[in-house]
Amino acid sequence: MNVLVLGAGQLARMMALASKPLNINVRAYDVGSERVVDPLSLSVDYGDLAQGILDADAITAEFEHIAHDVLAACEQSGKLFPSSQAIKTGGDRRLEKTLLAQAGVANAKHKIIANKFEFDEAIESLTLPLIMKSALAGYDGKGQWRLKDKSEAEAIWQEIKSFIEGDTSGRPQAIVVEQMVPFDREVSMVGVRSKTGQTLAYPLTENHHSKGVLSVSLAINEHQNLQAQATEAFDKIANALDYVGVLAIEFFQVGDSLLVNEIAPRVHNSGHWTQQGADTCQFENHIRAVCQLPLGSTELVRPTAMINILGTDSVPHSILEIPSVTLHWYGKGKRAGRKMGHINVCGSTRTELISRLTQLSTMLPNADFPDVNEYVSTL
Amino acid sequence: MNVLVLGAGQLARMMALASKPLNINVRAYDVGSERVVDPLSLSVDYGDLAQGILDADAITAEFEHIAHDVLAACEQSGKLFPSSQAIKTGGDRRLEKTLLAQAGVANAKHKIIANKFEFDEAIESLTLPLIMKSALAGYDGKGQWRLKDKSEAEAIWQEIKSFIEGDTSGRPQAIVVEQMVPFDREVSMVGVRSKTGQTLAYPLTENHHSKGVLSVSLAINEHQNLQAQATEAFDKIANALDYVGVLAIEFFQVGDSLLVNEIAPRVHNSGHWTQQGADTCQFENHIRAVCQLPLGSTELVRPTAMINILGTDSVPHSILEIPSVTLHWYGKGKRAGRKMGHINVCGSTRTELISRLTQLSTMLPNADFPDVNEYVSTL
Repeated sequence: MNVLVLGAGQLARMMALASKPLNINVRAYDVGSERVVDPLSLSVDYGDLAQGILDADAITAEFEHIAHDVLAACEQSGKLFPSSQAIKTGGDRRLEKTLLAQAGVANAKHKIIANKFEFDEAIESLTLPLIMKSALAGYDGKGQWRLKDKSEAEAIWQEIKSFIEGDTSGRPQAIVVEQMVPFDREVSMVGVRSKTGQTLAYPLTENHHSKGVLSVSLAINEHQNLQAQATEAFDKIANALDYVGVLAIEFFQVGDSLLVNEIAPRVHNSGHWTQQGADTCQFENHIRAVCQLPLGSTELVRPTAMINILGTDSVPHSILEIPSVTLHWYGKGKRAGRKMGHINVCGSTRTELISRLTQLSTMLPNADFPDVNEYVSTL
Repeated sequence: MNVLVLGAGQLARMMALASKPLNINVRAYDVGSERVVDPLSLSVDYGDLAQGILDADAITAEFEHIAHDVLAACEQSGKLFPSSQAIKTGGDRRLEKTLLAQAGVANAKHKIIANKFEFDEAIESLTLPLIMKSALAGYDGKGQWRLKDKSEAEAIWQEIKSFIEGDTSGRPQAIVVEQMVPFDREVSMVGVRSKTGQTLAYPLTENHHSKGVLSVSLAINEHQNLQAQATEAFDKIANALDYVGVLAIEFFQVGDSLLVNEIAPRVHNSGHWTQQGADTCQFENHIRAVCQLPLGSTELVRPTAMINILGTDSVPHSILEIPSVTLHWYGKGKRAGRKMGHINVCGSTRTELISRLTQLSTMLPNADFPDVNEYVSTL
């Protein structure tokens, strides 16, 4: 069985690794070279997109910013899961906000703006501070502006204006202006939905970001109320999209309530801990869903955390001496800030996990993991 | 980093899967085609053995019956772990028995015979019933004869005689004649030793064989006395061989004592449960050892069992609905009795594991898994 993944990055790679034992071969469509390649070696060329679609039993995506003609060609084959609509929704904050409204899922108060009049109106009608996010581009903190005081509006508008004008995608760009949520923490839920509508959610994950990029994720299994809220939101969103595969939802936690921040129609960085910490990892469950195999249990096996490796291609070998530490490199060339790999660490109890995390964070060089130590010390 | 594995079967494949996240690429020397290939796709050709040795940072083996000139060429490069002597010892029961004697490890009473005179003498001096095993060839029940009564001796000798004469390896063949041990059960220990002499052992595994081939393995963590005995034997044998990598030892349990049955200088079928059940799986630990990375913890994460898939290339998809069931296919063509894959299943307690094993065994077709159900019902 062949699965074609749109995108040839680490998510396709980890899907390939999770699929091999199921005798499922993952091939990856590299949107840069426009070739279908082996995501593990990157050296085998299986042809162009048309050939890749022909050879595939199922098609899926590892990211949401995929050219619409590519999505259309895949959808036409009847093999694309999730649907192009679901993928596009993850890649366009306007569609995302419409979906959340339709599904009746709580999220931050916001306006969608495309010109100066709407920009000014949004600032008047919403409560400052505001966060402004590009509708089409941008993730990991890119394409975003923060407005704390009205005096900053004109300068920000100039940036936004050239951003809107400079958009070369051919699609009209817009900005979502949102009230900044005074959240207590950021959490996310990764879950999976089958073609028959079965849904299974993983335990919630607490996420620590550094400069807008995920730095540490920690599975949290002890808040039944939050887990229930997130599961309800997951079911509403996944059902509204008639979703097939793994879907991630990022939330702001405010007191005991969750507000959706954004959704990602794919396996997600905050779900990497499931490789060691859950009965079935997110990569295998995504492949199971798109291949119409039974979904695997999403139960927590033991408390687990993940630390992202950003911008460096080496970590001290000695961290492998810590029991349960598992290193996941993505085989990518080094570049400042780039997601190069991650480290999973588990414990039989939360206390043991925190102790190992603490040991680990002191062994990781501060220059490459600037605020991990500080964050871990708060746990 | 490149590791060359001698042999391109499922063990090389699972080493490759465990190595990718460490940014270590496993290449496999296929002794049939005499080419170095990608063990995951089998389609990429990296050249001949000489090229493979040149490109490798470390060399290891997935089986012990490797031509001695191949071992010599690898050893000469200084990259081979474990040593050719250790690999040869696993492939020659004469060397194995000598090792056990030198290391002072208990094993069955035996004689080594190569002619009719020694054959007769062995039958006289040992206590029947006897098991006779080819010194050089044979595993999984091949090249073996059982003698229960002296009246069977002549017929068995005729078979053994032609076996010895028919050996075309160029090496003198012989037979190890052993007293059959009235064992209570068969257990095995998989462990790992680093180049610096550190050893770590996994929990003992209870093994159920069917027609001489491993059928079910079950990690057992509750017998401290047996675990201590096996660990002592492991340390003695691994140290005597100055071993580097994963080594497996099969034992007969007689009452509360363990007798070594045989050793395998490699990752082992009875250690496949470690993929889901241990902190670090045997494949990763083998690669860590031969690449001189720190060894990973061998602690049990949770009770785990493995069922071999023999001679069939399909199992009911519905087994994937059972929580924690993980399917591992080897991507091989179907052949009667061939090891095609295995199934791992875990439970948070032994009771839960047995319950899931029972459910699993009733879902597996009896024709393909003839005595799994019966064995599981005894647990």
